Amino acid sequence: MEKSIPVSNKNVEITDSFWINKIELVRKEVIPYQWQALNDKIENAESSYSLRNLRLAAEVLSKRKRGEKTPVFPTDKWHYTPENADKNSFLGWVFQDSDPAKWIEAVAYSLQNTPDTELESLADSAIDLICSAQAENGYLDSFYTINNPDKAFTNLRDHHELYCFGHLAEAATAYYNTTGKNKLLNAVCRFADLICDVFGENGKKGYGGHEIAEMALVKLYETTGNERYLNTAKLFIERRGTRPYYFDIERGIKNSNKIDYIYNQAHLPVWEQNQAVGHAVRGVYLYSGMADVARLTDNESLFKACETLFDDIANKKMYITGGIGSTKDGEAFTFAYDLPNDLAYAETCASIGLVFFARRMLQADFNSKYADIMERCLYNGILSGMAEDGKSFFYVNPLEVHPTACKYDSRKSHVKPVRQKWFDCACCPPNLARLISDYGEYCFTENEGTLFINLYQSARTSTDKAEIEIHSDYLNSGRVEFKIKAKTPFTLALRIPFWSNHFKFSKENPYIRKGYAYFDINGDETLTAEFNPEIKIIKCNSNVRENIGKVAVMRGPIVYCIEEKDNGSNLHLLRLARNPKFNLDGEFITANGYREKEDSNRLYYEYSETEETLVKLKFLPYYRWANRGENEMSVYIKY
Amino acid sequence: MEKSIPVSNKNVEITDSFWINKIELVRKEVIPYQWQALNDKIENAESSYSLRNLRLAAEVLSKRKRGEKTPVFPTDKWHYTPENADKNSFLGWVFQDSDPAKWIEAVAYSLQNTPDTELESLADSAIDLICSAQAENGYLDSFYTINNPDKAFTNLRDHHELYCFGHLAEAATAYYNTTGKNKLLNAVCRFADLICDVFGENGKKGYGGHEIAEMALVKLYETTGNERYLNTAKLFIERRGTRPYYFDIERGIKNSNKIDYIYNQAHLPVWEQNQAVGHAVRGVYLYSGMADVARLTDNESLFKACETLFDDIANKKMYITGGIGSTKDGEAFTFAYDLPNDLAYAETCASIGLVFFARRMLQADFNSKYADIMERCLYNGILSGMAEDGKSFFYVNPLEVHPTACKYDSRKSHVKPVRQKWFDCACCPPNLARLISDYGEYCFTENEGTLFINLYQSARTSTDKAEIEIHSDYLNSGRVEFKIKAKTPFTLALRIPFWSNHFKFSKENPYIRKGYAYFDINGDETLTAEFNPEIKIIKCNSNVRENIGKVAVMRGPIVYCIEEKDNGSNLHLLRLARNPKFNLDGEFITANGYREKEDSNRLYYEYSETEETLVKLKFLPYYRWANRGENEMSVYIKY
Repeated sequence: MEKSIPVSNKNVEITDSFWINKIELVRKEVIPYQWQALNDKIENAESSYSLRNLRLAAEVLSKRKRGEKTPVFPTDKWHYTPENADKNSFLGWVFQDSDPAKWIEAVAYSLQNTPDTELESLADSAIDLICSAQAENGYLDSFYTINNPDKAFTNLRDHHELYCFGHLAEAATAYYNTTGKNKLLNAVCRFADLICDVFGENGKKGYGGHEIAEMALVKLYETTGNERYLNTAKLFIERRGTRPYYFDIERGIKNSNKIDYIYNQAHLPVWEQNQAVGHAVRGVYLYSGMADVARLTDNESLFKACETLFDDIANKKMYITGGIGSTKDGEAFTFAYDLPNDLAYAETCASIGLVFFARRMLQADFNSKYADIMERCLYNGILSGMAEDGKSFFYVNPLEVHPTACKYDSRKSHVKPVRQKWFDCACCPPNLARLISDYGEYCFTENEGTLFINLYQSARTSTDKAEIEIHSDYLNSGRVEFKIKAKTPFTLALRIPFWSNHFKFSKENPYIRKGYAYFDINGDETLTAEFNPEIKIIKCNSNVRENIGKVAVMRGPIVYCIEEKDNGSNLHLLRLARNPKFNLDGEFITANGYREKEDSNRLYYEYSETEETLVKLKFLPYYRWANRGENEMSVYIKY
Repeated sequence: MEKSIPVSNKNVEITDSFWINKIELVRKEVIPYQWQALNDKIENAESSYSLRNLRLAAEVLSKRKRGEKTPVFPTDKWHYTPENADKNSFLGWVFQDSDPAKWIEAVAYSLQNTPDTELESLADSAIDLICSAQAENGYLDSFYTINNPDKAFTNLRDHHELYCFGHLAEAATAYYNTTGKNKLLNAVCRFADLICDVFGENGKKGYGGHEIAEMALVKLYETTGNERYLNTAKLFIERRGTRPYYFDIERGIKNSNKIDYIYNQAHLPVWEQNQAVGHAVRGVYLYSGMADVARLTDNESLFKACETLFDDIANKKMYITGGIGSTKDGEAFTFAYDLPNDLAYAETCASIGLVFFARRMLQADFNSKYADIMERCLYNGILSGMAEDGKSFFYVNPLEVHPTACKYDSRKSHVKPVRQKWFDCACCPPNLARLISDYGEYCFTENEGTLFINLYQSARTSTDKAEIEIHSDYLNSGRVEFKIKAKTPFTLALRIPFWSNHFKFSKENPYIRKGYAYFDINGDETLTAEFNPEIKIIKCNSNVRENIGKVAVMRGPIVYCIEEKDNGSNLHLLRLARNPKFNLDGEFITANGYREKEDSNRLYYEYSETEETLVKLKFLPYYRWANRGENEMSVYIKY
């Protein structure tokens, strides 16, 4: 491991119009909209109930404190609605508490970018509400607090206390690091202390069914310095998947088959997990925690396990867009090279989780392959999750869409041809909000002697080593200028993007290692890099059965697609010409191609030469698709 | 409508080695094996419980007759097991009674081909058992008789009394027509009388959730001449899908959305159903009944509705193999041209049902398009359902199989790469048994002046018009010889197979109409037809997205496929050469082609010319696939 630590979003000013636009959309659209959603104030949308639950939990706690008896409700479901549950019980998904937490976290990062006293006081009020729902012993989960506190921590596999805790901890550390206010942090530490009591060294051998507590405990450790938190994260990881299965023990059964816990990545000890399997978001959240613990405990074998999992994803289980999770069944990974375009799940949250994982791998060992994946996800499968007006979202990010199939074929019912305003299970929009608001955190990492630049938008930062201003034309000409005022001699490491065949630096003959070009910097200096993005025809590994005979088009990190709006319906009839003449036309790429003549009504007939007409194909960046209404889309095209 | 009636299987002697082999497999393997299955005597197989249920029903009835109180059990599930139900209750699927019925029907046809006193007495014993389970009022369904007779006919949508009745009626008519024994026929008529009382002209406005009673009542009418049966069939069809929905009425709800009853083809009146939708087997069973009623009641508009549905299937929703039902979700039709190869359901029973439908359309109106579909199904998607040793079966008949995907991708968990010994829901093997044993029934139809030959195996028959001997080399050279001894002058109509471009008859210039060639026959005569099967490259309609850039190979009615055993793994890397040199090599067809070089480990990379090696491709008839162990298979190949 060759480590580095990120330069905080707090110390990074994004000056890049592309990213400012996204960050501002989150600040002006997503965060206020989500606040309305948390308050159940969106008409014609499924209720969130999340703040209502916290309020109810606080009332229930006061009653209990006063010695009043409170009713007990069932805890056997994942989702409670006015139709299937008592009106005085918890409502919504069992993990509903995580939504206000993600909102607070997004607000914290947003305040780092743009201070806003009104928003901050709104967040303070949410924090007050959350803290009022904390029990005296530190327990903080509105589901069990309302429905039955005696059942707390009895179903780690299916319920989400450790998951909600994790999101709360991420919110608390972010809010504390932004504002210095420690109310939520203190509350979360009390909850963390309880968790360490129950599941620590001498406690129950449990771990969460939906991972995140691992990386959240690490954040809490990094913020407070309390080693107990790191140690519990380590225990969660070391125990996972060992026999006897904890999920068997808590359910009072014996010797489950390992297949039963693949979904939760709890089928094998993590060191033996050499393939990414199960629920994709859970997977990358676990692997993120593993990478954190490996780095902080200098555990090389755990790091190797992480690298094996990372490579398995990046080389065998990832869509060209950075999407992961090939099937809606369990929102899960399937098997190597199984990447169907039209049935893809590729949840926005999963790509976000993959960025978390990649950033942590990068911290553990600076290697451009990790930053390359961050970039691939960010510019493609993550940004596609949000409409250009910030008002609607994709949960699922397919690589091929035929709207009729989405309507009439239940296998594709998870694939939406247009973004949705909000979701019943609203994990993706707030996850997008917290990632995009924290974009700055992903740009730079540093260690003792070296400052690494991982992403190439225009930005400013100041660290102990230097003040750096980036003027970037990365997505267009590929030219990036770095104005450096060194405070001390240091090494600047610039990632060489995976897609750049002909890069050039103003300072010649840099030392190149693990995908970074190293430059010694001694004073004030302006350095430029030219990455020369070319329009490329990209082929998939031949084991990806769906894409045999097809190609995709990329330029720089941007994956392109064809849409019906620009190319007519029946995109599958289109073919890119051999050695096509590509042209840049604003954001579009045009190329010459052919359209196969549509058959009339014969279903099967004797082959005769296919008739084709010449057409001009128009490719649009994938992340921009479906911003002009419902239509067909495809990333791959016949070649 | 230009009608004809089939020459009974009883009067057709199949002398064709290909079909004798299949018929004998059913007689020697399938029928005895199924008898063991019905008796729960197969080790390591899910129990059938079907004879056990009938025995229990008989006991329960005797007790009730003696005035003893018998327990009541729940009737809210589709499937009852020792784990979820009382040991004294009904066990198995609610439609379990249909299995002994299908077995008796298969035995009846088999006895027509090959008398067998031992088998006949076994069938008699099964019939005795069934009849002992009949209540005094004629009711005959072991599920409600055991679990709760008061609930009889209260859930036509989900339960299967009318379905089980239908299979019993088909068994009873077949057994009576074969043996002259009327015990089962009488019992079924009593049950039919009860059904006519309950659901007749002045009864409840119901109809079955799983269709079949319609065509079964027609068989009962044709056997007994009792017009009440035809009339009830007509009522079942006329009422179906009309508002208010009967399935709403019986459940005490109002105004269901039509989408709720698409599965059962009860969403619209049948005249308005211009697209085949819902559960594919149910669909073609309903359409079969509609065709019967249209023919017998001279209802032209009902016949037109049938033709629209038939054409919708044949021209938009049928695999090249005659498979129907593109999705496992509801075992259903999806939408026009949605024919995914690897996710196909294409249930053996559905293709069998399509043959039932096609045969009935042919009876209503002699047009070769109906017999063409019979032939396509029989030689491809139906025969594929049975192993060459008659000992294992496919429920699902995919057009592309990648065994790894069947194991690790739950979307394909219904696709089995090898045939199974038996099924928990064992509808397909007995359906195969009854169709193949009755194969003779599909060969000839006749009307006053004309004898139609629809299928071209070697066979003998004798009707009022003539004695005919067919000596067929249809599948090989395409030559078929007809030795005719006319008893009276008549017209012989020979179907011109859809695949035959260069047919030739020994008697020149026949009159050709609706796909049949007509010849006047006056005495003894030998006529030959040469249909000249050629190896053809077949293309799909361009709206079938999955098959763009791919072709299939056919010769005569036989669809071919490539298997891993003959062509190596990764069949998707193979490509058929332009203008390939085809050769017949026994049952195989060979051709020259190319294999794309397999990529090592890069997932995405810049396109460079694909490397290919020359290979000799080996195609096997589709119906023969998976007889040499688990391996990849594909009907379509790149071109």
